[in-house]
Amino acid sequence: MNRRGKKFWVGFDLGGTKMMATIYDGSFKAQASAKAKTPVNEGPKAVLGRIRETIAEALKEAKVPLRALSGIGVGCPGVLDLDQGVILEAPNLGWRKVPLRALLAGWFHCPVVLANDVDAGTYGEYRFGAGKGARTLVGVFPGTGIGGGCVYEGKLLRGKTGSAMEIGHVPVRENGRLCGCGKRGCLEALAGRLAISAEVAQAAFRGEAPYIAANAGSDLKKMKSGLLAKAIKAGDAAVERIVRDAMRLMGRAIGGVVNLLAPDIVVLGGGLVEAMPRLALEEVRSGLKETAMASLVKQVKVLEAELGDDATTMGAAALAAEGGR
Amino acid sequence: MNRRGKKFWVGFDLGGTKMMATIYDGSFKAQASAKAKTPVNEGPKAVLGRIRETIAEALKEAKVPLRALSGIGVGCPGVLDLDQGVILEAPNLGWRKVPLRALLAGWFHCPVVLANDVDAGTYGEYRFGAGKGARTLVGVFPGTGIGGGCVYEGKLLRGKTGSAMEIGHVPVRENGRLCGCGKRGCLEALAGRLAISAEVAQAAFRGEAPYIAANAGSDLKKMKSGLLAKAIKAGDAAVERIVRDAMRLMGRAIGGVVNLLAPDIVVLGGGLVEAMPRLALEEVRSGLKETAMASLVKQVKVLEAELGDDATTMGAAALAAEGGR
Repeated sequence: MNRRGKKFWVGFDLGGTKMMATIYDGSFKAQASAKAKTPVNEGPKAVLGRIRETIAEALKEAKVPLRALSGIGVGCPGVLDLDQGVILEAPNLGWRKVPLRALLAGWFHCPVVLANDVDAGTYGEYRFGAGKGARTLVGVFPGTGIGGGCVYEGKLLRGKTGSAMEIGHVPVRENGRLCGCGKRGCLEALAGRLAISAEVAQAAFRGEAPYIAANAGSDLKKMKSGLLAKAIKAGDAAVERIVRDAMRLMGRAIGGVVNLLAPDIVVLGGGLVEAMPRLALEEVRSGLKETAMASLVKQVKVLEAELGDDATTMGAAALAAEGGR
Repeated sequence: MNRRGKKFWVGFDLGGTKMMATIYDGSFKAQASAKAKTPVNEGPKAVLGRIRETIAEALKEAKVPLRALSGIGVGCPGVLDLDQGVILEAPNLGWRKVPLRALLAGWFHCPVVLANDVDAGTYGEYRFGAGKGARTLVGVFPGTGIGGGCVYEGKLLRGKTGSAMEIGHVPVRENGRLCGCGKRGCLEALAGRLAISAEVAQAAFRGEAPYIAANAGSDLKKMKSGLLAKAIKAGDAAVERIVRDAMRLMGRAIGGVVNLLAPDIVVLGGGLVEAMPRLALEEVRSGLKETAMASLVKQVKVLEAELGDDATTMGAAALAAEGGR
């Protein structure tokens, strides 16, 4: 293949447990990918080294020389300084003040753009997935926590230090469960995957979720989204009720966001939604109707995300190609 | 005064009980104002006639001839079609599908821009008041209900049919009080002036708010913001508690908005805040800290609006001068 004169972009998804680099051509067709585990326990330098190797591997696999590389976009966890290209604090990675943009630019000799990971995923769905053509797109990605993003008239809504749209920390219950952020009653403390797992473990311990008890005991670590979906299929009624209530509560919170941002599309993604899309969409739509104004409910479509794990790398690559906005 | 070659703008505030037209010069200095009651009971035609007269009166008072008039901006209640310049539905006015932009353009031979009234007020504070220089400004105006607006990077956040930022209808309590929108537990059903008045009337009826009982009996209509402020000064402890709790609840809801939009400034205005600014700001700040993430609390200032009733006309005039955005 003659790659002379063509432009290529790297989209990078930096997670707390794994990372992925994908090479895209100018029309954002994937050319090759490389994945690796994130060696958080080996310290920041090891993680940085692994990032460099993973990108180099993907470039090699795609046969893209450095001179054909136009830019790198990175979806990052944590609190960012977008102007400086620094990860200020990423508890998942054990990082503080890591100048990731400068490091990557030095290694690969190209412009680098950082974005919040959920923002990158939302932007990916906006450009290439279920959110195409939206005037106002809200993306909600329930995983261990619940992340959110918004593309308004073609641009990501952002705060001073990176991401806005912390929908996981919207208050939904006065004096509700304690959240990782130190407040009580945040959406993610009540309806994130961890909150669901904790409630499911309680039920399993009481003997009310036999499939879960047999396959995960009462260990939260083992209660991933896929297992929850299997337990529901196997007839664990308590698990179904817990998941449905959580999704409905998330829908109620999204309804509040609809009242604020009046989106035309809400995209739902993330592990929990991928494991049980029908149930999740049904309950979110029903919760949303409980709280969103009737005139706004009429205008909004609630859709399943289309790109899965590729949303973040595609979005990050597109942001890099567009200079970071 | 020689007004040859100068440009003038009309800012118009169309309310359900009163209306105001103010003439501004090119630097948005007020030249003259005219006010009138909104004759809602006489039907839509009477209201339209009164709008025309009020603008004409203000122009005459300012000695601005029609040929020097560059445009009219109108802050309107209700649901708008901004593209068409039509008020789709305004229950306060008893209006449905009134093509206000075309009517005004026909009468005054100039471009006309419609905006949601709270949006216009928020934009006024952004351009000329407490929100100057904000990257992301959130405006919250508790009156009978609770209105909100947001200016993000210089532009109003808007939905398909006019306004976004319906903060009065953000859910704050599951199974809370019934709201005018038909849902339960909306912020304004719990913390708007009407909700406060209803709770105060209950207390007055029980003999727990002697100043209110003596001056308003148990009639909600008489329990305006000014009277509530006077009752608090006179020592009606129940009234103070009710108002403080409502403002703190509003602060909690605003904290949720802070988590979503990461504003650098929140401006509070409206009758209730004007009547008791210190108390309102104190409780809103305290409620906000209960729900907003610590990193975002640090970045945001909660300020009192500076322009009072002029925010809407100034903002509407500025929107007209800038072509509606």
